[in-house]
Amino acid sequence: MTSDFQFKRAAIIGIGLIGSSLARAIGERKLAKEIVGYDADEKVRARALELNIVDSAPDTLAAAAAGADLIVLATPVGVVGDVLKEMEPSCASGVLVIDVGSVKGAVVKAAQSAGERICVVPCHPVSGTEQSGPDAGFATLFENRWCILTPLPRKDDPYLAAVEKAKALWGGVGAYIEVMDAEHHDLALAITSHLPHLIAFTLVGAADDLENVTEAEIIKYSAGGFRDFTRIAASDPIMWRDVFLNNKEAVLETLGRFSEELALLQRAIRWGDGEVLREVFARGRDIRRAIIEAGQETDSPNFGRRKQP
Amino acid sequence: MTSDFQFKRAAIIGIGLIGSSLARAIGERKLAKEIVGYDADEKVRARALELNIVDSAPDTLAAAAAGADLIVLATPVGVVGDVLKEMEPSCASGVLVIDVGSVKGAVVKAAQSAGERICVVPCHPVSGTEQSGPDAGFATLFENRWCILTPLPRKDDPYLAAVEKAKALWGGVGAYIEVMDAEHHDLALAITSHLPHLIAFTLVGAADDLENVTEAEIIKYSAGGFRDFTRIAASDPIMWRDVFLNNKEAVLETLGRFSEELALLQRAIRWGDGEVLREVFARGRDIRRAIIEAGQETDSPNFGRRKQP
Repeated sequence: MTSDFQFKRAAIIGIGLIGSSLARAIGERKLAKEIVGYDADEKVRARALELNIVDSAPDTLAAAAAGADLIVLATPVGVVGDVLKEMEPSCASGVLVIDVGSVKGAVVKAAQSAGERICVVPCHPVSGTEQSGPDAGFATLFENRWCILTPLPRKDDPYLAAVEKAKALWGGVGAYIEVMDAEHHDLALAITSHLPHLIAFTLVGAADDLENVTEAEIIKYSAGGFRDFTRIAASDPIMWRDVFLNNKEAVLETLGRFSEELALLQRAIRWGDGEVLREVFARGRDIRRAIIEAGQETDSPNFGRRKQP
Repeated sequence: MTSDFQFKRAAIIGIGLIGSSLARAIGERKLAKEIVGYDADEKVRARALELNIVDSAPDTLAAAAAGADLIVLATPVGVVGDVLKEMEPSCASGVLVIDVGSVKGAVVKAAQSAGERICVVPCHPVSGTEQSGPDAGFATLFENRWCILTPLPRKDDPYLAAVEKAKALWGGVGAYIEVMDAEHHDLALAITSHLPHLIAFTLVGAADDLENVTEAEIIKYSAGGFRDFTRIAASDPIMWRDVFLNNKEAVLETLGRFSEELALLQRAIRWGDGEVLREVFARGRDIRRAIIEAGQETDSPNFGRRKQP
């Protein structure tokens, strides 16, 4: 019953955590008849075949894109423009092309230079783990997570239809859908994702540089709070480099807010102003409670970390 | 066989997360013949009796301390000095008194004013959750976690014996023991625990203050990284206020290091220096790997958060 498949041929470009998760989800839910995978790394292509998450893994971008009616760009944001340019001549007219990047303004710009023969719908599924590569993916990664679409300012029918197909795809793998403009996306994600990563990377870097506390001590006493930060600080360095290079303004703006708040607390500590500290500290429980109630976090203590050993 | 008990009467002062966990661990492992609990909050005393984690819950500190051969101060650090002063006349001579506070310099100072009739051994079990109160505790909280002892500069036999008893107690509830001076403790914990909490409280406060991103958006997209910070930002505000008021110098010093590192990354983002970003970001994986290998963290992606819903 091929007519039941939403897509005839889905091409996944970049078979890392997100690409391989989407390939698995599309496969398990039978959303495409055929799944083709391409990765710049030959070993990753071979692994994707071994893992049986793609039907074939051609060794050129052009061969992967040709004949596809869905193309997923799951590369670091920094190369999306180049990949689009290289791939475009091989694409079928009107093909739906989505990306999964954490920054959307830069993708919208790249998509606009690609021309209107293909239908690029910038997408950001707000989900992931700290792990990378084809082995790290899993089919349920997008379930009950938000996927933000930031469509181009195009009103032609093929494009409007492509946006609907993109929504159906994300809905089909279990995500909730939100549509907004790229600028607002980049600001909202700067505070909910980019700044937290920057802060986590910074704290780990600062700990590494202390000369009067050893690394062995940092590791032993990390259960005091530090270890929480190491999870997102273990995320892919190239992916995150590209996020910061491509969302400079919004990250610097939210970082400014963070630094102001930090200066306030620093001053309260220096002058022993317990009331200011208590007041800021008391906000944390409410927002965590709200996140748990929205189904975006576990309510188990310590994230439900399994009991050690 | 009462002679098998390490203590005849253990008095737990402050029946919150840590106090109630230690009471449970002492009870389950039969380390004391009798467990007495005291809390300034009458409702907490009643709850501790209901939960059956203490044998009795007298309504004065003096009554709880009297006749005990182990007294555990599990109050916020800011009141340890006052509690010691109020309690001291009721204490048996030579009684072992431990605290569980996250700051040790201030406790050493308070203990020294208490005099040598009682044996105060400052302790810090580096473990906990973001939850508070007698219901939040559990007996395995200290297993495979480090407990740091910062003994007073006393060399008399009763005191040295008391230090050994404190070590045996923590070993008995499953902790690893480390001994160091209070100053070094306060610096090491500033980076592994106090600064992470300060940063998490700061980020949550900064997010709360944005006028162009709504709280609903912060909650929806928190899976991008923000939610990780809300765990420790949900910790007890009073406990943490006291930590910062009592470990000012070390926190301000490590905060200075953090701010320098943050300025470096801020500058790299502003000037598009991807190499600096990549280099700092690449450190995260190694330190997380080391923490996992040391048994201080789970190796499951996303902390092994249970699948939602």
